[in-house]
Amino acid sequence: SDDGGRRKFMDFPFAAGPIRDAMVDLVSTVENRLASHLLPPALPPDVQYCRNDPGTAHASLHIRSGYNSSPVDFILGSWLHCKLPTGNGSLNITSLSAYLNTSTDAPNLLIELIQSSPDSLIFILDLPPRKDPVFHPDYLQEFYEETKLDTQRQVLEKLPEVRPYFSSSLYLRSILSPTAIIVRIDGGGRPGRVEEIVKECVHPVAKEVVGIWLEKCAMEKRGLGEEELACLKKRDGLIKSKTIEIDLGSNFPRLFGPEVSERLLGAVRMYYNV
Amino acid sequence: SDDGGRRKFMDFPFAAGPIRDAMVDLVSTVENRLASHLLPPALPPDVQYCRNDPGTAHASLHIRSGYNSSPVDFILGSWLHCKLPTGNGSLNITSLSAYLNTSTDAPNLLIELIQSSPDSLIFILDLPPRKDPVFHPDYLQEFYEETKLDTQRQVLEKLPEVRPYFSSSLYLRSILSPTAIIVRIDGGGRPGRVEEIVKECVHPVAKEVVGIWLEKCAMEKRGLGEEELACLKKRDGLIKSKTIEIDLGSNFPRLFGPEVSERLLGAVRMYYNV
Repeated sequence: SDDGGRRKFMDFPFAAGPIRDAMVDLVSTVENRLASHLLPPALPPDVQYCRNDPGTAHASLHIRSGYNSSPVDFILGSWLHCKLPTGNGSLNITSLSAYLNTSTDAPNLLIELIQSSPDSLIFILDLPPRKDPVFHPDYLQEFYEETKLDTQRQVLEKLPEVRPYFSSSLYLRSILSPTAIIVRIDGGGRPGRVEEIVKECVHPVAKEVVGIWLEKCAMEKRGLGEEELACLKKRDGLIKSKTIEIDLGSNFPRLFGPEVSERLLGAVRMYYNV
Repeated sequence: SDDGGRRKFMDFPFAAGPIRDAMVDLVSTVENRLASHLLPPALPPDVQYCRNDPGTAHASLHIRSGYNSSPVDFILGSWLHCKLPTGNGSLNITSLSAYLNTSTDAPNLLIELIQSSPDSLIFILDLPPRKDPVFHPDYLQEFYEETKLDTQRQVLEKLPEVRPYFSSSLYLRSILSPTAIIVRIDGGGRPGRVEEIVKECVHPVAKEVVGIWLEKCAMEKRGLGEEELACLKKRDGLIKSKTIEIDLGSNFPRLFGPEVSERLLGAVRMYYNV
């Protein structure tokens, strides 16, 4: 296809309706606003979409690099579908990340929706900081306080179906900002309640945060000193390699076998530059 | 008195019984184990204990410096009692912190109990990291994963009366570790339930974490390189000055007036070296 697999990715064939609607809207918002920053997608078709042999696992990747002149390093969308080993139900993960390059130290973007039953959903939304906020209170002020990011977290906190979620990886917890949304939504057995919350809260909150990221972080280079730059490069690299190791490295081989998994991981590593 | 005001501090005259029991036990545990590390308390009596003129606000400070040969910089215990402006009820804060010096980069200790009604309690317990964990995954591994600190957080998380608490200060959220306990305990109107939880969970969990801190952090110097040392000094200093600014600087003047408040803050600043 001449759209580099974008259409296949944007189908989200296994996601619940409101999750698909949210993801299509969020990816489109980012791509439209960053249109002049992003190269066309260039992944080989067997990385844009793949499945395992029994057809129990499917995955799609959508990656677009930024032009050299842009502060955007790349954006990465993904979805993963697999039958649960219990034979009952399936796991669906959809995500959108955006990484900026070292022409700026502004925060990245991270959105992830993990659904393992129609009655519950894990939702992660953050602008992960690229500097230690403890060491840089002014950074916290500029990107997290002045943007009032915490009010978005509070919108979700108020719902009785929403509870904070703690990842089993302490490293993943560490890379998130103090305003990160990392919650489990539990429908409590009410059919359609989780989808309703996605439509009414998750989607609008994510849209708001994506807007803040596009407005305040994604479009502008910031002149960094030599020492800052060295530190940023090292920190970015560490986060990327640990993220791949924890997030993808542990799941893909199990789901797709070594060959397909190496193909996917190889592509991701190339963009992550790790 | 010849015990440098320790007895006055250890009275906790306004704290609920189980909170007093917990604090006396925790302070004693730290002081006994660190006996050979700590100088006698040396605060002037009017800083060890003070009150405002109408008698609506009382505070006590208990500070002991470490010997030069020890990795302990100082320990700081405090309690604060004040009538709420509504005239109905009072606010009681009790805390124990321990700061290590730059002969080690091991985590500090932080315990704080904030009670503004018999039916609810905010509980903060952490070993705040002294390095950016994102930049130092090995640090995270050594002090937070191998010590299984998160299992202590999970003990509290399981109680239906316990919910995560979010400080309004993003900076305070940032200085905590990914295994920090920062929760609100709500008795739901059941008389004595909060005190029961303090006795059965808060106290044992805090005791366990204090034990881990004494065992793994407090007793041992770690040879730091020149660059590490410079970074640690700057980060420690920032945390201390921001903590005073956010935590004490905003409350003391309001409660005790400028004169008493300057005396207390002056003493704290001397130990904090900021």
